[in-house]
Amino acid sequence: MQPKVRHPHQLVPTDRPALLFDLDGTLLDSVYQHVLAWKEALASAGIELSIWRIHRRIGMSGGLFLRALVRETGRDLTPAEADRLRALHEERYSRRIDEVAPLPGARELLHVLTKAGVPWTIATSGSNATAGPSLKLLDIPAGVPVITRNQVAYAKPNPDLFLTAAEGLGRPIADSFVVGDSVWDMLAAQRAHALGIGVLSGGYGREELQAAGAYRVYEDPRDLLAHIDELGIRIG
Amino acid sequence: MQPKVRHPHQLVPTDRPALLFDLDGTLLDSVYQHVLAWKEALASAGIELSIWRIHRRIGMSGGLFLRALVRETGRDLTPAEADRLRALHEERYSRRIDEVAPLPGARELLHVLTKAGVPWTIATSGSNATAGPSLKLLDIPAGVPVITRNQVAYAKPNPDLFLTAAEGLGRPIADSFVVGDSVWDMLAAQRAHALGIGVLSGGYGREELQAAGAYRVYEDPRDLLAHIDELGIRIG
Repeated sequence: MQPKVRHPHQLVPTDRPALLFDLDGTLLDSVYQHVLAWKEALASAGIELSIWRIHRRIGMSGGLFLRALVRETGRDLTPAEADRLRALHEERYSRRIDEVAPLPGARELLHVLTKAGVPWTIATSGSNATAGPSLKLLDIPAGVPVITRNQVAYAKPNPDLFLTAAEGLGRPIADSFVVGDSVWDMLAAQRAHALGIGVLSGGYGREELQAAGAYRVYEDPRDLLAHIDELGIRIG
Repeated sequence: MQPKVRHPHQLVPTDRPALLFDLDGTLLDSVYQHVLAWKEALASAGIELSIWRIHRRIGMSGGLFLRALVRETGRDLTPAEADRLRALHEERYSRRIDEVAPLPGARELLHVLTKAGVPWTIATSGSNATAGPSLKLLDIPAGVPVITRNQVAYAKPNPDLFLTAAEGLGRPIADSFVVGDSVWDMLAAQRAHALGIGVLSGGYGREELQAAGAYRVYEDPRDLLAHIDELGIRIG
């Protein structure tokens, strides 16, 4: 008789998968402030782009955002212009930080996960400059390995942010959930071999997130917390 | 031998169906300004609502918007409070009117339709107070029977606005297209027995508009004009 094999999945308790959260639109009600900050930055450079087109690209890497923009407007950008636009966006966003608040249930969800021993962290395409002040709104415990654009080669929809986040937690990415509001999060989740969980709180539609591979879609962090059993996480 | 029967459809040339346009998000890049005007109006009354929830209700009747809000926040509103919020939204929106511009292709589309003899008009859930200044951005020819909230008993998703718009053009509603950016437009189109054409320029996703019954979905007025043959409208 063969010895009983210990399967790899038995090494990680499946009721405590790591949760890797996007920031803007997922934990914070900040997407529309980012949209308008970009709109103003672009307008100051004489680039007129419809607001919905900006909205649909929030959450992706700033570099890719500007490339897509070049394609859509037919206007070329030098690397120096792109840097200036990124800096202007950061400055315009920081003026609106007082309007930004955690989404309903965000702080409670993170608190419940911490208490239950479910590992979690945040991985954002934002830079330290924009994410830093936003993160302060969430009371993140010391030791949570938050990953920003500054720590990886490529932001979403490349998988780097989520891969680095899972490594920071010491958990296998393939056993982790990525929670995000945009199709860029869901696509990055697929590339990272994680499962994507969508939230509607960034303004994308349910069907768009499902089409981009979401395993499940909730309204916002409060709704996710109310249905956390659907992720096989047993709390309380 | 029976005399040749003239079918009702032969009374109206099918290559010149009436087009009934929504205004905000369909012809004007004004949805995000409405969203933030509502956010500020609600906040001033101590009502905190996530921005995406406001976005998803733009384009519906203001009265229904406030009812839905009462349900979602659990906070009751007196009729006087509702009136005050509506007035405050109008005031906050009017402060932003300088940021509002026609969507790409909007003016050109209306001009081409006028020149080709395709009857068209605009039917908006907005009041005269908010729609008036917005309409000025579009150079609407005299005689186009624009319909606002003030002229009907119920705004979208009730069919009244589009029914009245078709009547104003003297065209059968069942031979008309309703062009809009929100599910409320598509639902009102279904109730009016018109065909709905979606545009993405208000920030809804393609799949949401299709699920609400859109016959076809375009990016914005420019994209609609580039594909107007798909509506069976022959121009030039």
